[in-house]
Amino acid sequence: MSVVTDLLARLDGIGRDPRGGWSRPGFGEADLGLRAWFAEQATALGLDVVPGRNGDLWAWWGAPGPDAVVTGSHLDSVPGGGRLDGPLGVVSALVAVGRLRAAGFRPARPIAVVVLPEEEGSRFGVACLGSRLMTGALRPDDARALRDADGTALADALRAAGVDPQGIGRDDAALARIGRFVELHVEQGRALADLDAPVGIATGILAHGRWQITVTGRGDHAGTTRMPDRADPVVAAARVVLAVEAAALAADGARATVGRIDAVPGGTNVIASRVEVSLDVRAASASAVRSVLARIEEDGALAAALSGCAFGIEQRSWSDEVVFDPALRAALVDLLGDVPQLPTGAGHDAGVLAARVPTAMLFVRNPTGVSHAPGEDAAQADLDAGVDALEAVVRHLAA
Amino acid sequence: MSVVTDLLARLDGIGRDPRGGWSRPGFGEADLGLRAWFAEQATALGLDVVPGRNGDLWAWWGAPGPDAVVTGSHLDSVPGGGRLDGPLGVVSALVAVGRLRAAGFRPARPIAVVVLPEEEGSRFGVACLGSRLMTGALRPDDARALRDADGTALADALRAAGVDPQGIGRDDAALARIGRFVELHVEQGRALADLDAPVGIATGILAHGRWQITVTGRGDHAGTTRMPDRADPVVAAARVVLAVEAAALAADGARATVGRIDAVPGGTNVIASRVEVSLDVRAASASAVRSVLARIEEDGALAAALSGCAFGIEQRSWSDEVVFDPALRAALVDLLGDVPQLPTGAGHDAGVLAARVPTAMLFVRNPTGVSHAPGEDAAQADLDAGVDALEAVVRHLAA
Repeated sequence: MSVVTDLLARLDGIGRDPRGGWSRPGFGEADLGLRAWFAEQATALGLDVVPGRNGDLWAWWGAPGPDAVVTGSHLDSVPGGGRLDGPLGVVSALVAVGRLRAAGFRPARPIAVVVLPEEEGSRFGVACLGSRLMTGALRPDDARALRDADGTALADALRAAGVDPQGIGRDDAALARIGRFVELHVEQGRALADLDAPVGIATGILAHGRWQITVTGRGDHAGTTRMPDRADPVVAAARVVLAVEAAALAADGARATVGRIDAVPGGTNVIASRVEVSLDVRAASASAVRSVLARIEEDGALAAALSGCAFGIEQRSWSDEVVFDPALRAALVDLLGDVPQLPTGAGHDAGVLAARVPTAMLFVRNPTGVSHAPGEDAAQADLDAGVDALEAVVRHLAA
Repeated sequence: MSVVTDLLARLDGIGRDPRGGWSRPGFGEADLGLRAWFAEQATALGLDVVPGRNGDLWAWWGAPGPDAVVTGSHLDSVPGGGRLDGPLGVVSALVAVGRLRAAGFRPARPIAVVVLPEEEGSRFGVACLGSRLMTGALRPDDARALRDADGTALADALRAAGVDPQGIGRDDAALARIGRFVELHVEQGRALADLDAPVGIATGILAHGRWQITVTGRGDHAGTTRMPDRADPVVAAARVVLAVEAAALAADGARATVGRIDAVPGGTNVIASRVEVSLDVRAASASAVRSVLARIEEDGALAAALSGCAFGIEQRSWSDEVVFDPALRAALVDLLGDVPQLPTGAGHDAGVLAARVPTAMLFVRNPTGVSHAPGEDAAQADLDAGVDALEAVVRHLAA
């Protein structure tokens, strides 16, 4: 077992979901356990662990200072997700930095490993919460107003993690310390598998928005209400789901997903009064996403009306397409040789930080392409190849 | 305010659902509060409160004995239900019996007011749980294996209500005490409103079954999985919901409802791995329900396959159509005069008990017809008319 494989295996007991996979919502018990584990590991490597203002955790080699080489990722997961999405980038960073220290490398500039919180947005509904706060893309008042599905306020979740909720927000001092940011991540598709390559370099990230659709009908009794008399929002929402699929299929390369659907009140012998539907749309450009959305709004409203129901939609998050720093990308290509360069449909903290600092991403091959599900995987040799690449990149950038 | 209106108003604070209406799952906190209230009220009227073996509560006027006139209903509710469905029958029974006692009526046979538990089946998934256990329609081992959505076993819920879970099951002694059973209930449709009648007599209950449909697909990442590569069970379930509606629309008078739909794991940026869908089908006869179900099974499997998903279905409950005791119904018609007689699509404990004892039902007009939702209502004059009718019926049957 290699070092990275061994470290990853130690995390497998944390946040297991009885329904399958791992559920590690940001600042929940599992996430707090992983954060504590990170601080212990980094301290054991001789790094100085310094909490940031937005729930971010930094482990410094050298005084926190300008022009640092920063690498890291996130520890939280989607519900029922895989074991690599997030932790692989943190663990690989720790192993790469550990190797550089063991080899006696003397960096010319500071190096840091960073953990960014609630990247998946699976608890408070805003993806890349930490990096959005740090860069000012999310206003602290808006963040403090967030609540999770149980009604817990973000402010209380932050306090439980030892973070002062009054201190969150744009952190120019933290950003000013970053010279270059490199995030390693398991690939979330089959591109590297199809290209027979263990490691790849990201070119950019698809534009991405999330919305909440509410289909409102008329609650009633399932046994006594004749079919023609109904305004059943479950039937209307079914038509909306099909309209979402059709809109994405009609747009080249676009993806649109309903991952959550809740009938309220949700009794087996009750016609629901409304249905809440999550919507996730991604495409190559912001305008392509807008165009898919326009079609969903038009066809969704018609679909709901067919069942006598009303259609409402609210935007929950938005990310323009990201193109990673060309000069940094060119440096990685020079260093790593003939590795594939590829875009991704997944959002990342690296994509948010790219608006403020030169940023790059490395991907590690995922043979099945499965992501956000327990089937996500990578071969041990590829995990090692990822650490080798990251070590080479950090050594080169910090030299 | 009349006595029945006043008594009902005292219950309005118990089990309010912040999402609207009342949620009083069987043996939950609200239900236990209502049961305690019932025992107090019955005791104050001079009745002897005696718990049954299946969570049923009896309030006796006279020694519990053969040929009793029994009236009552249930206190639990669907999630987000109305204030009358269940409690109206219990409160009206208490008021009617109280009036008979106050008037010095001397019954020739025992009279009892009964509360039957978990009639809606909204907590443990089996409607008319108490009457099914009492009549032997549900085996005690099957009941003890039931769990609610939080994983609480029925046995533990029974213990919390002071009921020995080892004592549940067919209760021939309890049934042998019942001479005639009459349940008063708010109407769950608009038939009495359309006929301009405050009170009606039930002829029977539609045949009724419940099933759980599971649509299984392939969990994956919402951003990186191209549309044609997906096996998205939410899309497949949407097609299944439309197949359910189409099957019911094609069958005269049948009703089919999906009231609950849950995508697992349910993340906004996750293609779900499976979707759980509740199915409720009712029609004039058992064979008509079977025919609707056959069409749902055939079209649902095809619908799921269209999205690369698998379709599974399991029966959760079954009730043949009920025809209430013709002699008892004729006696009520003689007594109450020219009141409408009507069937209903709603299940009731009276329908379960009808298999073992002569049973009748009275309905009170619901001007909107709305049921299992907060809009369920009845005018004060109609509530009083219901009590008048029930009092006359109990007086006649017990004389």
